[in-house]
Amino acid sequence: MTDRGSGRRVTLTEVAERAGVSRSAASFALNGRLDQRLSVETMARVRKAADDLGYRANLTAKTLRTGRSGTVALVSDFVSSTSFANSMVRGALERLREEGLLLFTVDTQGETEMERRFLEDLVARDIDGILYGSMFTRRVSPPASARQTPMVLMNCEADDPAISSVVPDEHDAGATAARLLLDAGHDRDIWFIGALAPGRTGGAAWHDWGPVALPRRLDGIRETLAAAGTNLAGEVWVDEDWTVHDGRDAAERLLAGGATPKAIICVNDAVGVGVFQALRRAGLRVPEDVSLVSFDGGVLAEATDPQLVSLGLPQAEIGRRAADLLLARPTEPRHELVPMPITPGGSIAAPHA
Amino acid sequence: MTDRGSGRRVTLTEVAERAGVSRSAASFALNGRLDQRLSVETMARVRKAADDLGYRANLTAKTLRTGRSGTVALVSDFVSSTSFANSMVRGALERLREEGLLLFTVDTQGETEMERRFLEDLVARDIDGILYGSMFTRRVSPPASARQTPMVLMNCEADDPAISSVVPDEHDAGATAARLLLDAGHDRDIWFIGALAPGRTGGAAWHDWGPVALPRRLDGIRETLAAAGTNLAGEVWVDEDWTVHDGRDAAERLLAGGATPKAIICVNDAVGVGVFQALRRAGLRVPEDVSLVSFDGGVLAEATDPQLVSLGLPQAEIGRRAADLLLARPTEPRHELVPMPITPGGSIAAPHA
Repeated sequence: MTDRGSGRRVTLTEVAERAGVSRSAASFALNGRLDQRLSVETMARVRKAADDLGYRANLTAKTLRTGRSGTVALVSDFVSSTSFANSMVRGALERLREEGLLLFTVDTQGETEMERRFLEDLVARDIDGILYGSMFTRRVSPPASARQTPMVLMNCEADDPAISSVVPDEHDAGATAARLLLDAGHDRDIWFIGALAPGRTGGAAWHDWGPVALPRRLDGIRETLAAAGTNLAGEVWVDEDWTVHDGRDAAERLLAGGATPKAIICVNDAVGVGVFQALRRAGLRVPEDVSLVSFDGGVLAEATDPQLVSLGLPQAEIGRRAADLLLARPTEPRHELVPMPITPGGSIAAPHA
Repeated sequence: MTDRGSGRRVTLTEVAERAGVSRSAASFALNGRLDQRLSVETMARVRKAADDLGYRANLTAKTLRTGRSGTVALVSDFVSSTSFANSMVRGALERLREEGLLLFTVDTQGETEMERRFLEDLVARDIDGILYGSMFTRRVSPPASARQTPMVLMNCEADDPAISSVVPDEHDAGATAARLLLDAGHDRDIWFIGALAPGRTGGAAWHDWGPVALPRRLDGIRETLAAAGTNLAGEVWVDEDWTVHDGRDAAERLLAGGATPKAIICVNDAVGVGVFQALRRAGLRVPEDVSLVSFDGGVLAEATDPQLVSLGLPQAEIGRRAADLLLARPTEPRHELVPMPITPGGSIAAPHA
């Protein structure tokens, strides 16, 4: 809603005021909504006011399917109702707002029937586009009914390559974690804590979903260590979940078994905090005795002293890029990997002699 | 959508299948939506199928304004796009789902213009009700336009007492925090860390909003200590925000000033973690040398070893009760205080001799 020619921004509110109608009436008139019972006179008055003021509707928004509702829906499993991936909502919301589009968020709690109801409802409401998201990175199968509307996958991937997607570059993050330890001089007694039994992903409600973070992180770690002529001393499983408690238990088992880790790669920050606590209880110092690196880059990485070095989930950037793809509607689908930045901390040092 | 008489559940999907139409067409037909271009024949066929099967639309949902859209909107500042209060979304979503209603969530980022656009859009879409929420407990002024639709305030309060609201019982939580310390034998050298300069609330984007948690917690603390014949040794301000870093700085200043706290009440878990770190750096043990209690009951309370005793924000319960009020539509507005439960931990002990 910017008149780029003059640098002067003419808003819909100004058009409405000039035409003497409500802002929503002005919007309906300009978008040709015939179901709002506006009189022909009113519609003409609004269009004249828009012309007089030089108002130009947002061009990018117009490239979306209908150009009518001005709204996009973020449909996900648990993104807005849990505290793991909310920055994706923020990133998408901010990007769409730049184009004058509103974002609705709906959580289906992973239930197929609820998802179908939402998607039917959204299609019936002439939503302009759908960001189909997941709380954690996994493979999904969006229902065919949703294909009637432009769609981009956010933090998930479909078997159908025709749907554009944006996910974190987990493989590269794993490689970076390993490289940080190698660069500090570690070349042996490097452990990984946070492996899961097959089908487990960290969370009771979604144990039958296939996560992709774990195998990709592990591949990146293994390949990077192998290229440097070394390898993981071992992988420790957590009992149930990627929590502080399970991380601590796993590390205590490792130490009780007589292992002498010099560095530990933790699958996420919560496990990292638990490992930190287990090391403290055993009288081991971080980073003097044991170096730690984790994944997530969340608030828990700040909770240890020193702070955990962590590979951050770039959630706001994923949301922003997914919104970008929805707006751009590239002729060929795109599958973007977003780098996971290093969240700095003090948990890595040269190995203890 | 339950036929309570027979205990047999007839679903809308079954009605649609019997009538040979899509589920959304069946819904439109049964709800009398005339704007969906269904033929008279189709509508009659759907109604007959519903009668044949004994389908009964949800009665509670019918008590909402239109009974038409089957959707409720949670309109807030930052609830779904940040990680502080997402359990409110979950609580509301689960309660509404029990009644067959869907929940849309929209974040306005606290911007008045965006809020107006959303509310106009929602009213235009015949939304059944609005949960008007805030990320943290504060006073709000919902725009008059939203009053066309049933509304309940979630984690916020309006000057207008005609709007029902649900907030945490912060005063009682403050009293409980003080009582936990008194019961452990503390009667002096009890400090509070986390006071804010006037108008500050913890977060750059909302510094001009009036939070209510801080003064209510402090009132509950002060009254309870006074009733036991003691009082706070002092209140320590944080520099900027309720973060780990600012909490640690505040505690280090306190210790550097020569204070000898026996117990510290921390305004939230993040500040509690920072205080814990400062005590550790000073060679002081929790709880042997200093007892700690905080507020929030979030994931950070688990990040210290021992875990912080914390008064939990009952967010899921707030969401559930707000949805309840929206469904019940009491004849008189209600203003509910939800108790803040004690999250157990190991951070409180008898005072060091």
